[in-house]
Amino acid sequence: MVTQEVELTAPAPQAHEHDEHAHKKLVIIAWSGDLDKVWPQMILATTGAAMGMQTTVFFTFWGLFSLVKDDVHLTGENWMQKMMSVMNPGSAQKAKLSHYQFLGAGPAMFKKLAGDHAVAKPEELIAVAQDLGVRLIPCQMTMDLLGLKREDLLDGLEEPIGAATAIAEMRDAAVSLFI
Amino acid sequence: MVTQEVELTAPAPQAHEHDEHAHKKLVIIAWSGDLDKVWPQMILATTGAAMGMQTTVFFTFWGLFSLVKDDVHLTGENWMQKMMSVMNPGSAQKAKLSHYQFLGAGPAMFKKLAGDHAVAKPEELIAVAQDLGVRLIPCQMTMDLLGLKREDLLDGLEEPIGAATAIAEMRDAAVSLFI
Amino acid sequence: MVTQEVELTAPAPQAHEHDEHAHKKLVIIAWSGDLDKVWPQMILATTGAAMGMQTTVFFTFWGLFSLVKDDVHLTGENWMQKMMSVMNPGSAQKAKLSHYQFLGAGPAMFKKLAGDHAVAKPEELIAVAQDLGVRLIPCQMTMDLLGLKREDLLDGLEEPIGAATAIAEMRDAAVSLFI
Repeated sequence: MVTQEVELTAPAPQAHEHDEHAHKKLVIIAWSGDLDKVWPQMILATTGAAMGMQTTVFFTFWGLFSLVKDDVHLTGENWMQKMMSVMNPGSAQKAKLSHYQFLGAGPAMFKKLAGDHAVAKPEELIAVAQDLGVRLIPCQMTMDLLGLKREDLLDGLEEPIGAATAIAEMRDAAVSLFI
Repeated sequence: MVTQEVELTAPAPQAHEHDEHAHKKLVIIAWSGDLDKVWPQMILATTGAAMGMQTTVFFTFWGLFSLVKDDVHLTGENWMQKMMSVMNPGSAQKAKLSHYQFLGAGPAMFKKLAGDHAVAKPEELIAVAQDLGVRLIPCQMTMDLLGLKREDLLDGLEEPIGAATAIAEMRDAAVSLFI
Repeated sequence: MVTQEVELTAPAPQAHEHDEHAHKKLVIIAWSGDLDKVWPQMILATTGAAMGMQTTVFFTFWGLFSLVKDDVHLTGENWMQKMMSVMNPGSAQKAKLSHYQFLGAGPAMFKKLAGDHAVAKPEELIAVAQDLGVRLIPCQMTMDLLGLKREDLLDGLEEPIGAATAIAEMRDAAVSLFI
């Protein structure tokens, strides 16, 4: 089978429900962990929530790195490093710039720049998103691949879900973006 | 003119039709040929189809490589190699990891990893997609650029279409994603 | 705060309005400035407009480079170069292939190829988009980051907007894509 978490029973909402919710739901598939993609992921999510939309961000693949606690040593790290170098040469280096180095020396300039220009930093945006009620949901399959447990991720997240539940969310949303 | 295949006459479905189909159609523009993008393209497509959605994947640009038969020598290969190095430095190497090497030595580890974790391999996902009735549609313009003929592509695909038909599909879909 | 341009008051269109416009609006978030992404951004936009859809392209982040006049020396250029090398190693070189070199020597082959295959060049597609009534809208926040003023951008654009207005556009659209 394709994925082990497929939910074939997710009910389609009725047309009437659709009309009511159509303008209210925003779903973002956060696939990338690159800083320049985390920014639009979280700026759009927090802005949508501030506008009153029901906003959900589903973190999958490289995007899941944004949710891993700083002090977690991935049991699958060597695996990931290898996978990155095999699948996407150059990405390993790029990904180092994601979550793990937000508080390190490398992106110090980035953070200064963001500060100088009154643009929130990514980790701040995730905190703001939580404050605004954005649903932050990790991808179960990616967690399995990386050997991550629920306690390895930030607090305040929803329960991990699979592709079927993510699709059911998007099916009922006014706007769905893959970033 | 912009493209030679623009269909100006594609009729807009009626509002009533829209409500009925709104929760049923999923359209994915498969633009990337990188393994880490082919995965979400095909996992979302097969999951959507398994959920009962009318699912269409439109393969364009680098994404078209996923549909080329293994034994096809692209007449436009030199052209493509050059184009890749001009347009997107580093991509030529990345793209080697797509379709063409799925059965080669390079991604052997990737396939093992996918197997170890019960995640289907991309070529399996395409086969599963066909079994589930996912419509797999190549982009005519990309075929023209690459000098590809219909018989160079996998069996079981729908007829090639252009951007206008792809847009008409998305206009009537509940979820449209560019991956 | 997240962004200084959030509009919390953007009214949600009524359900009735939604039904009427649902098939008519196409919104593209043009985030990338890479040639191979500018192509689908503009081909989809011009095709949608040719089909009669109300089409909007919102240029943000690297995508904004497509709208900068050739003779503009970015006051923030050094900043951008640094930011690019920090955030996305390899991108600085890639981005050189965007707007700034469309008329230079590097992409000469690309333009020849596009010409040979009757595919319009990106700068032509932007001109065609304007002729077809596509709304081309720069992102205010990106302009602020780059130190760009309205007169540094191409003529014929709409007034710059922020994330909230872009979301309000997508909320009412039949198709929204992040490219």
